[in-house]
Amino acid sequence: MSQRIVVIGGVAAGPKAACRVKRLLPDAEVTLIDQDDLISYGGCGIPYFVSGDVADEKELRSTSFHMVRDERFFREAKGVDVRTLTRAVSIDRKEKVVHLEDVKTGDKDTISYDKLVIATGSRPNVIPVPGHDLKGIFTISSLHKAIDIKGLLAQGKVERAVVIGGGAIGIEMAESLADLWGIETKIVEFMPQVLPRIVDRTIASMVEQHLRENNVEVFTSEAAQRFEGNDEGWVKKVVTNNRELPCDLVIMAAGVRPRGELARDADLEVSPYGAIVVNQRMQTSDPDIYAAGDCVETYNLVTGKKAYAPLGSVANRQGRVVADNLAGIPSRFDGVVGSFIMKVFDVCVGSTGISTEVAQAEGFDAVSAMAVQSDRAHFFPTQALMFNNLIVNRTDRRVLGLQGFAKMGDGLLARLNAAAGMIARRAVIEDFSNLELAYAPPFSTAVDVLNAAANVADNLVSGRLKTVPTEEFVAWMDGKADHPDWMALDLRHPREAEPWVKAFPEKWYALVYDKVRENYEKLPRDKTLIIICNAGTRSYEIQVFLRSKGMDNTLVLPGGLNVIRRLGVSWWQQ
Amino acid sequence: MSQRIVVIGGVAAGPKAACRVKRLLPDAEVTLIDQDDLISYGGCGIPYFVSGDVADEKELRSTSFHMVRDERFFREAKGVDVRTLTRAVSIDRKEKVVHLEDVKTGDKDTISYDKLVIATGSRPNVIPVPGHDLKGIFTISSLHKAIDIKGLLAQGKVERAVVIGGGAIGIEMAESLADLWGIETKIVEFMPQVLPRIVDRTIASMVEQHLRENNVEVFTSEAAQRFEGNDEGWVKKVVTNNRELPCDLVIMAAGVRPRGELARDADLEVSPYGAIVVNQRMQTSDPDIYAAGDCVETYNLVTGKKAYAPLGSVANRQGRVVADNLAGIPSRFDGVVGSFIMKVFDVCVGSTGISTEVAQAEGFDAVSAMAVQSDRAHFFPTQALMFNNLIVNRTDRRVLGLQGFAKMGDGLLARLNAAAGMIARRAVIEDFSNLELAYAPPFSTAVDVLNAAANVADNLVSGRLKTVPTEEFVAWMDGKADHPDWMALDLRHPREAEPWVKAFPEKWYALVYDKVRENYEKLPRDKTLIIICNAGTRSYEIQVFLRSKGMDNTLVLPGGLNVIRRLGVSWWQQ
Repeated sequence: MSQRIVVIGGVAAGPKAACRVKRLLPDAEVTLIDQDDLISYGGCGIPYFVSGDVADEKELRSTSFHMVRDERFFREAKGVDVRTLTRAVSIDRKEKVVHLEDVKTGDKDTISYDKLVIATGSRPNVIPVPGHDLKGIFTISSLHKAIDIKGLLAQGKVERAVVIGGGAIGIEMAESLADLWGIETKIVEFMPQVLPRIVDRTIASMVEQHLRENNVEVFTSEAAQRFEGNDEGWVKKVVTNNRELPCDLVIMAAGVRPRGELARDADLEVSPYGAIVVNQRMQTSDPDIYAAGDCVETYNLVTGKKAYAPLGSVANRQGRVVADNLAGIPSRFDGVVGSFIMKVFDVCVGSTGISTEVAQAEGFDAVSAMAVQSDRAHFFPTQALMFNNLIVNRTDRRVLGLQGFAKMGDGLLARLNAAAGMIARRAVIEDFSNLELAYAPPFSTAVDVLNAAANVADNLVSGRLKTVPTEEFVAWMDGKADHPDWMALDLRHPREAEPWVKAFPEKWYALVYDKVRENYEKLPRDKTLIIICNAGTRSYEIQVFLRSKGMDNTLVLPGGLNVIRRLGVSWWQQ
Repeated sequence: MSQRIVVIGGVAAGPKAACRVKRLLPDAEVTLIDQDDLISYGGCGIPYFVSGDVADEKELRSTSFHMVRDERFFREAKGVDVRTLTRAVSIDRKEKVVHLEDVKTGDKDTISYDKLVIATGSRPNVIPVPGHDLKGIFTISSLHKAIDIKGLLAQGKVERAVVIGGGAIGIEMAESLADLWGIETKIVEFMPQVLPRIVDRTIASMVEQHLRENNVEVFTSEAAQRFEGNDEGWVKKVVTNNRELPCDLVIMAAGVRPRGELARDADLEVSPYGAIVVNQRMQTSDPDIYAAGDCVETYNLVTGKKAYAPLGSVANRQGRVVADNLAGIPSRFDGVVGSFIMKVFDVCVGSTGISTEVAQAEGFDAVSAMAVQSDRAHFFPTQALMFNNLIVNRTDRRVLGLQGFAKMGDGLLARLNAAAGMIARRAVIEDFSNLELAYAPPFSTAVDVLNAAANVADNLVSGRLKTVPTEEFVAWMDGKADHPDWMALDLRHPREAEPWVKAFPEKWYALVYDKVRENYEKLPRDKTLIIICNAGTRSYEIQVFLRSKGMDNTLVLPGGLNVIRRLGVSWWQQ
């Protein structure tokens, strides 16, 4: 008798596992179950569907050769039987059956399995404050919700929107509302920065500034305390701890949590927050049951700890590993480093590995090395500055993460992708200094920005480079913190430095880079010199030179004013 | 007494080593010697200077903050003494002095060293056929030559040009002449394809076709046999084994060879072809003499054999390693994988690791796995097809190389960079299947084209996927080779397949992908079925299905018609 394989969940990991196992075991009977009627769609495309970039939801569930991935398609093209609008109510592991319910009629049914795959995905968090159930408050949990939101927008019913949550989905939704529909959009983020725990403060500040430049206001360290509606029960206001935000639409993008109830109720091992525990073969605590996608827990390859990584790309890879193991191929999914990238209007931001903040919280002696330079030859027309911030562990020189900020395009992707595999393999700084990135003037520079970041890290960890944290310097300049005896040493061209010297006469000293060797004796030795240029490289050279002359009273501003001017701080335009 | 460090060669590796060692050892006396008057320039930018993208040669030797890197700059900003127009004639290792000659006056001098760095670079090959010394025949060996070429172009003296050599520099020069100056340009390449030994035949054919589409004719398997000039000794014709090519300008881009004479004459170990032999610390056979850049031999990290890798990016990294070791930091340069990328009009082509052809010649059981898919979500406006060809060793599943072809942009760079470090670390197919590339719809697809190539490789090596070599299929279709009993099984939409069925009535059978399961019994079992779709993925699925029905008489066309239609073969427009 042929093997019966049942897959619960039809968005990403489920269909992947189902189709591949059918190819590997052509005689198996493979059935895919989903409670929705729309399956196998690209959930990550939802913001682009809402914006209108994607005209029809069918595009999100079509193959590259324009066939809609519906029940008929799975049956005829893939040989996989699909039952939509069918809820898996419970799993009887002893009898090896899944109890089912027809979502529309409530009719009960069962399906027996030899092997079961759970790919039930995640559900969005809802902030449990008064009014959270008003109409006009949407999570981004399914294609149906997205269709509803787009319907509202198309009817012209939305003038003002509030997005709760400054993570990736929140920012993508804000861009989609503001950019394509011209809706006055604000983001409320509970943490002190957008993209918390994903990127560090400096790069988050660049993202916030770019959002503001595109008319998306961002309120960090603020929480929605209640929602207020009109007489029809439609949301009209978000009240935070600091302000009231009138609106006609609220997008709640406050993260997701795993749908692990089905597994938990079947006494499979689940994590305290509900994610299904699997081994590297994606097997649950029952060897006949596998799980994959947003509903499982995985490992972080940097910290070595358990992690939750709800991402479509991860789900697809896990689904493939499930299929292999069902067919007797011993593939493994070892964990994630957390690669991430997103478009934000005209820029992009991304990371792989862990942030400095996370690394320090995990007990690493983490420091970050910022490199700012042209992404390609300076004469190439599409040339732009790229920011690469490499996070390293001081004690063993291991690279823990890379973050970047750049003009929209694939240049940042090229550096993140280069780093991801290396970080997973515990590469150290030297491995990144020597990493052989492809080079030609239209694509990069002879010393690539990623190699440069590793060189900065080397100088930092070896103690040759000493920096002032950007946030600390900004606080001094903002007058929010005081340092009694600092003075800026500005190495830029006198024309560039002049307005700053005028604006901060007591604090700003200009001495152009190539004149320091002959004039360094004029510099004060009783001040902490903050050495400043545009990118930080000249500053490093001068710091090393001054040290050789017995002057150890210097700190370099990392990334120089190229960083500062992207933070939107009040005084940079001086 | 302070240490005396002498560096011979002032283009890339030399200045890098000199400036960094001065930072690491501020008390050292560092002197840089070069026989030219122009130093520290981006030689890779020469084609862009000739084209006019770079208006002034000074841009090629300026810092990102617009200072020209001349003698004054090195002295005042870097603390490095530079002697230009000074030739290093010989090295007296016993006395530790270098004998010098003033290039203009012929005056002799000596300079003593504690440590010496040789960074004498490379010189271009000149094809020793009659007329090779005519005026108007240029190698791309220095900035002066580039200035001379650009002068000629600006005077309107060139209507037709011939480039000898279809490597990267030859193609870049051809583009620069044809695109920006409108010159009728032809490339003559001795080998049967452009970019020989760098990419395999299929991708080379795509490049050749794109050159032809941009009015650059390419003659492969042809050699210049003589050059003919006019009465003033100016070149007017290139005569090959097949044709005569009238011209006013010849660019000789037939590769470079190391300038190792100075080292060889000092009895340092050099390779048979003249490259200086160094260890991983970049030390020559004399422990007080280091060498770096185009003049040294290095290792290929894939083959484990000695290799020559004259590239600006490699030179910079080696220069840094030299400086470290001079200062007592035990940095190493272990070798190269050969990362490469270039722009060709509107497309780009690149590779890392070794090609199938090279791998097979080196004794690997190498096969190549072609993935063709959208570089990002299909709805994103800049979306385009990307071709990734992964070369793997069948016996141990090690990944040996990656080649790609794509629309101009950084998308291909992102995949090559991701692969480079992995290949250097002997990653296997599974490592690439699970490689965690950053994903969001504007940048990539949930299963990235590089992951997909690894999945194809897995299917290929495990025997599930069986392919027909593209070249073989093309030869059948071209009528250049005969296969008695093949038949195409076209899985595309009937509208797409119809003209092909009409054009090849005996040979072309159309059966749309999702109808195969119900109609496979109609397929002939006495023919070799070449399964064809647009990308190869549907074909693979059908191959697996047919095998499960006992039909093993199938081969998949790798990459499908997306590959074929980029080769410029005569019949594809059927």
